[in-house]
Amino acid sequence: MTPEIATPAPVDTLVDDVEQALGHRDLAAVSGLLADAPARHVVQLLDRLPPRQCAIAYRLLPKQRALEVFEELAPELQGDLVHGLQDAEIAALFAELDPDDRVWLLDELPASVAPRLLRGLPVHERDLTAAVLGYPRDAIGRRMSPEYVTTHPEFTAAQSIERVRSRIDDAETVYTLPVTDGSRRVVGVVSLRDLLRAAPDALVAEIMEDAHTVDADADTEPAVREVTELGVLAVPVVDSERRLVGILTIDDAVRILTREEREDSARQGGVEPLSRPYLSTPIRRLVRSRVVWLLVLALGATLTVQVLEGFESTLEKVTMLALFVPLLIGTGGNTGNQAATTVTRALAVGEVRARDVWRVLARELQVGLSLGLLLGLLGGAVATLVYDWHIGLIIALTLVALCTFAASVGGVKPLAARAIRVDPAVFSNPFISTFVDATGLIIYFLIARTVLGI
Amino acid sequence: MTPEIATPAPVDTLVDDVEQALGHRDLAAVSGLLADAPARHVVQLLDRLPPRQCAIAYRLLPKQRALEVFEELAPELQGDLVHGLQDAEIAALFAELDPDDRVWLLDELPASVAPRLLRGLPVHERDLTAAVLGYPRDAIGRRMSPEYVTTHPEFTAAQSIERVRSRIDDAETVYTLPVTDGSRRVVGVVSLRDLLRAAPDALVAEIMEDAHTVDADADTEPAVREVTELGVLAVPVVDSERRLVGILTIDDAVRILTREEREDSARQGGVEPLSRPYLSTPIRRLVRSRVVWLLVLALGATLTVQVLEGFESTLEKVTMLALFVPLLIGTGGNTGNQAATTVTRALAVGEVRARDVWRVLARELQVGLSLGLLLGLLGGAVATLVYDWHIGLIIALTLVALCTFAASVGGVKPLAARAIRVDPAVFSNPFISTFVDATGLIIYFLIARTVLGI
Repeated sequence: MTPEIATPAPVDTLVDDVEQALGHRDLAAVSGLLADAPARHVVQLLDRLPPRQCAIAYRLLPKQRALEVFEELAPELQGDLVHGLQDAEIAALFAELDPDDRVWLLDELPASVAPRLLRGLPVHERDLTAAVLGYPRDAIGRRMSPEYVTTHPEFTAAQSIERVRSRIDDAETVYTLPVTDGSRRVVGVVSLRDLLRAAPDALVAEIMEDAHTVDADADTEPAVREVTELGVLAVPVVDSERRLVGILTIDDAVRILTREEREDSARQGGVEPLSRPYLSTPIRRLVRSRVVWLLVLALGATLTVQVLEGFESTLEKVTMLALFVPLLIGTGGNTGNQAATTVTRALAVGEVRARDVWRVLARELQVGLSLGLLLGLLGGAVATLVYDWHIGLIIALTLVALCTFAASVGGVKPLAARAIRVDPAVFSNPFISTFVDATGLIIYFLIARTVLGI
Repeated sequence: MTPEIATPAPVDTLVDDVEQALGHRDLAAVSGLLADAPARHVVQLLDRLPPRQCAIAYRLLPKQRALEVFEELAPELQGDLVHGLQDAEIAALFAELDPDDRVWLLDELPASVAPRLLRGLPVHERDLTAAVLGYPRDAIGRRMSPEYVTTHPEFTAAQSIERVRSRIDDAETVYTLPVTDGSRRVVGVVSLRDLLRAAPDALVAEIMEDAHTVDADADTEPAVREVTELGVLAVPVVDSERRLVGILTIDDAVRILTREEREDSARQGGVEPLSRPYLSTPIRRLVRSRVVWLLVLALGATLTVQVLEGFESTLEKVTMLALFVPLLIGTGGNTGNQAATTVTRALAVGEVRARDVWRVLARELQVGLSLGLLLGLLGGAVATLVYDWHIGLIIALTLVALCTFAASVGGVKPLAARAIRVDPAVFSNPFISTFVDATGLIIYFLIARTVLGI
């Protein structure tokens, strides 16, 4: 019906054709299809194939094309492929990668493989890679590139452009030049654009700008977020004495951010993040990524069974009270999730800090109370019409109390998680539901007992 | 305790000081504080102030600084500020913005203001802005910059660099040059880096690369995601005949993507996205962003009340069955959310397409069944020990059926949403819970009746 379905994207055709050819074990056909396809389409194809077929397809690529595709693959897929290759092939691939990409790949390989691969590198490349490997796994130093072009305040624009030309083959970027003093301290940055705009004999000192730098030991996520928000193409990475150690480019920052977002979004949904694309992840890995969370949450939910057991006599007297249990705990859970989602996001982008906890609590109390009053009035009125005013009053009072409670807990929880240094995305939504569920049931039955006088 | 608390970031100190000075209505002090602060800190400060205080603080900025800060603000905050300014001030600010930033701001202002502001612009600027404004609100053409530098296949590297120098003040970027033929069709791209690396008399035709282009009418989100994944600094934007109409830079793509991610994450949590920072959003807007969803979900949840009413006689006979209701529907909801989260993400990044619906269903049936068997065995065993084997059997069978059902529905739902062209993030998680809750209860009570023979 829609034009999209009428004309499938070329990559879809490629995927279909290759899958069919692989199904018929017609490797010559696969090889032919791959030879003509753009590298980016091949990457998308490999993302969708199961591991074994992925390895077969990869080995059918022409040699130069194989390298190009390899560089574009996610590190986890690179890691998978490497297991199926000969040592000599791996060493050749490894030498071609940029130092920072090399470190991504090393992080995916067994620790025993890394030293052997590193030993195979030319000395210069090995040193560059070792510098990056020296930083902790979640520090920005681990993700920076050690291949940068610098200039100095007393150099002219023309001299700086010459420096760019001389390093143009190796450097990660030539568009942002950190400006350093005699002891390698960063005193500014200058863009290639400003160098080209300036008079050839203008001094760098006159055209450079203040440098936003990031600390090599800083945590990855806030640092990359800052870089992407600054709207700059690259920032210098410095050590504790502000000496230049590397550069972080916006495209690498975006790549890291995308991974972090993927992890956060998975954990908010109660799933461990998948390390590879959905369709090529084996079923048992999908199960494993979910089962632990599900068990933890189910274990937490046994609390609700215990709470209800405590009120079993009330339930026996007024079975009708059971009818509203899913509705009420659902509403409590939703209210808590809303607050948690909003505050988690505000925290991630730096709009809210851990020390704002009282302001957040004050706001969420007000929001929760307002929501509770709105829903309570409405729910109470409907319940009075359908059942009787006792039920109406119970529903109304419960909704007011529950929404206020749930919004406050939901809003404060991400901040509490941050304070005890747990990823707020991990600790928020599913846990809140369980906690709010059990407390909500207690509130409900206590109100019901009071109103009904039992 | 932690070093972070011992030494607050300078921006925190600034925020505290300014808030205090504003509280005392000591505008001279505010003005002094703002004069010394870096633009980026001022932006973060304005993000945190309530609208009225934000407007006061903004007006205390020195004139040149005010422009610099204005350009960095989110369009919504810009829109707020503009309401408090004189027409002449607005016109001056407006003329200084880049065409694409101008369009962001126009989108935030009442439709009546736009023509007046546009009339105030110099002709050239007005034409550029009008070109961008001509595209639909969610098309990439609306977000591109019309200020680019092109070159041609028959030009030399040196000639191309000269073109860069001549356009260096206006162009959005000079690092990526679309290469066009005589009829403005894009035939490639060449980077400034490659131009500098090449011999001065090398022809562009020899050094240019294939261009990834995006269609000006394409939807924003997939297009910006593609740009950020390509790892390029900019892509040409073309019309339906592949003629160049603009350029999209990676920093703009990232900015758009961040907004989209914020919206998706909000909607997954059942909140309408906030248009401004959390702490500066009035309480009534927070309530408004949540109440509609909460009502819709509560309305959906009345389905569970109806289902339970249908089984009220069963509940009266075996009150104990009520004890497990929150646990079971919670587990069903979690299983469904897990599947929906994973598939929504895979869909957003293009790992899964709408036509993969059967593959997704097959995978989620297997995953759900596996999870159900694991949880069912465990839950059934525990329930048998604590209660009796009837209850154990009911719990086990319900968990198997429920997990299989919930995972399938959760996995397919995002694809269904995409097929009917609704944002999968809006349509997924909260809705699933409600639907799965009601169906889960039916499954549970039918199994219970059968096992108990009532």
